[in-house]
Amino acid sequence: MKQTAAQGFPANPASPASPGGAGRPPKLAARMSMVRPNAIRELLRHGDDPSIISFGGGYPDPALFPVEELAAVYADLLTAEHAGALQYTASVGNPRLREQIAARLSADGMPAGADDVLVVQGGQQGLDLVAKMLLDPGDIVLTENPTFLGALIAFNPYQPRYVAVPLDDQGLDTAALEQLLTDWPAGERRPAFLYTVPEFQNPTGVSMSLPRRQHLVDLAGRFGFVVLEDTPYRELRYDGERLPTLRSLAGDARVIHLGSFSKILAPSMRLGWVLAESETLAALTLLKTATDTQCSTLNMAATAAYLDRFDIDAHIGRICDSYRRKRDHALVQIERWFPAAVHCTRSEGGLFTWLTFPEGFDAARFMAARMLPEAKVAFVPGATFFPVHEQPNHARMSFSAQREDVLSAGLERLGRLLADELS
Amino acid sequence: MKQTAAQGFPANPASPASPGGAGRPPKLAARMSMVRPNAIRELLRHGDDPSIISFGGGYPDPALFPVEELAAVYADLLTAEHAGALQYTASVGNPRLREQIAARLSADGMPAGADDVLVVQGGQQGLDLVAKMLLDPGDIVLTENPTFLGALIAFNPYQPRYVAVPLDDQGLDTAALEQLLTDWPAGERRPAFLYTVPEFQNPTGVSMSLPRRQHLVDLAGRFGFVVLEDTPYRELRYDGERLPTLRSLAGDARVIHLGSFSKILAPSMRLGWVLAESETLAALTLLKTATDTQCSTLNMAATAAYLDRFDIDAHIGRICDSYRRKRDHALVQIERWFPAAVHCTRSEGGLFTWLTFPEGFDAARFMAARMLPEAKVAFVPGATFFPVHEQPNHARMSFSAQREDVLSAGLERLGRLLADELS
Repeated sequence: MKQTAAQGFPANPASPASPGGAGRPPKLAARMSMVRPNAIRELLRHGDDPSIISFGGGYPDPALFPVEELAAVYADLLTAEHAGALQYTASVGNPRLREQIAARLSADGMPAGADDVLVVQGGQQGLDLVAKMLLDPGDIVLTENPTFLGALIAFNPYQPRYVAVPLDDQGLDTAALEQLLTDWPAGERRPAFLYTVPEFQNPTGVSMSLPRRQHLVDLAGRFGFVVLEDTPYRELRYDGERLPTLRSLAGDARVIHLGSFSKILAPSMRLGWVLAESETLAALTLLKTATDTQCSTLNMAATAAYLDRFDIDAHIGRICDSYRRKRDHALVQIERWFPAAVHCTRSEGGLFTWLTFPEGFDAARFMAARMLPEAKVAFVPGATFFPVHEQPNHARMSFSAQREDVLSAGLERLGRLLADELS
Repeated sequence: MKQTAAQGFPANPASPASPGGAGRPPKLAARMSMVRPNAIRELLRHGDDPSIISFGGGYPDPALFPVEELAAVYADLLTAEHAGALQYTASVGNPRLREQIAARLSADGMPAGADDVLVVQGGQQGLDLVAKMLLDPGDIVLTENPTFLGALIAFNPYQPRYVAVPLDDQGLDTAALEQLLTDWPAGERRPAFLYTVPEFQNPTGVSMSLPRRQHLVDLAGRFGFVVLEDTPYRELRYDGERLPTLRSLAGDARVIHLGSFSKILAPSMRLGWVLAESETLAALTLLKTATDTQCSTLNMAATAAYLDRFDIDAHIGRICDSYRRKRDHALVQIERWFPAAVHCTRSEGGLFTWLTFPEGFDAARFMAARMLPEAKVAFVPGATFFPVHEQPNHARMSFSAQREDVLSAGLERLGRLLADELS
């Protein structure tokens, strides 16, 4: 290790590297101007007040976690003969778990083998890695309007510009998208990708109809953009018929498909998956290595063992039965107590209902000024879900993590207050 | 949800967004040009051949994992009354675990409270988040020469330029660094940060002397740059006296301190920590939310419970006893079998010994051409650890994960082959 000179640029006797500045916070990268505290995380602080009934977080119901089954698989793994479950493993993920995910995707119309799957640290990491792979500063991301706040939070550090496509009760308005793409400004960059949650969208709860799915996939082919399909709620369907995924309609590099165990098993293990073409998957796997080396070996092995030993589809059936009852109960209470001027979506699945208040109503101001102090109820004001022009007259509510009696109490209190406010 | 027009840039009837390209892999971001497969991951494929003795990975010995104790804490948590351990939690990490980490840091000369600590997905995520926070494309990162490959892998997607500072048996050559900073090219950007592993450095095993630590901290103050201090091996000291961390010598925003449970408990849970000033920690916590929401609630709760119920310092003592014996045994075998022209470092701790071969020797070529096929032994060729000008005549070896009889067999085979090759 004989070394004499620093290596990099050639030495050049000139000005010192800096005028000093001991102990001052460092200068941040330009991307940090797009990284700010978000309303949901701020809101969740109210969750510490036990008198507040929160419809805020999109949390699964902890009473539905398969605790006994998970206890059994962790106990089996935490033995000397399975010490490998505590060791490092490959960045791409546990081989058995990748096989199982591929089999589930294949059964859902997306033919896949283990090699087509990357295990990620929850769906959120899938969003981060795809953005990291595709986005240069100033690139354009197409989103639904409104869209999942967590996706904006994941994408923002890569400094995109957002173009928001209208959404209605049939999901993303693909006619509006086609018009947008046809009228694309001359000299403007092409969209890097389009982000969509086709089922039970966060925050609105709406799902994309089959004709629109087909139209979107056609547009992706014609205009040459990637679709990032995010499906965390796909298996939480309470009514209606399952529709084919965008990935199953496209079946090629047009669609990167993202899923998660957080809502169908438990969020705590932080496990999701990406299904993509081999070149794309290889690039994402390199970024996975760079970002955090790998997911938890133990959590991956435990989830694989759970899938081998227990019937996750039966478990998902029980979850859906419970959430369907809660949704139905909540919608009855909303119907009963909310003034008619407040519209809410009726989702066929997932965790969310989207409230629309009359024009001019500011949901965030209402929550801070009256709803939290008087009704002791929280939701997520909707403005933050709009990537471009925030609309203040919406809110997102989730019923999944509350008991029915708590739903009744909270929705009555909120409904009475809204009736007063809007009268 | 009545929406009519897309929101973003104004519509402009002109050229379509793209000439098409259904199914082609997407255009990647510019940063991907710095994201490539790495030699270690490629090498680990040889690990699948059971006849190969690998000194490659920097893996802890699975026989030392506290399996029974971890089984006990996971069993306690996986009960209906602790279902919260399977739910989402705050991005910044488990509160009890943050307290415990802060207490351990305080006992190590770095006064800290829980609020000063962010829990990250292993040390690797700490490297990713700090680079994400600080690096604009073209920014300069100062590193030791050679340096930890995983750090380069983490930093590369943020498109830095590297300036490598010489390293000798006393660690980073701070006199060379001072000269470098004094001679900094006029008009060149100031360094964004300096990355160092002060104890038992990866790949060389050397530690930074106390005078150099003090000098480095002084230089950081005088020249106004941040030091990223990475300490994954700090507690694996087998001889000599523990030295104060850079963080304890600086005690302010000059030093971001990074640590990990991977080598002292187990890598599988993917848990590490960042200690930094409040503004820095807040920015990193926002990036943690953006990147993967949070670490595994279950793994954090289990680690906190382990620290409450068991004596991790006694456990670390047992690990050190085992690794010290392995290191001593390996060095005896190297002395016995290796030709005198091969130099190796004798580290006071950690997992690594660094081999230096005569000028002109190409360790990678030797491994591929003779070492793997003839001696059935693997190490990590050293070229990949040099951020700027690769030096081919080095290799990194780790003895931590092999039994003593395997060490003997592998080192004899390698030594005999080297004697033949260099004769």
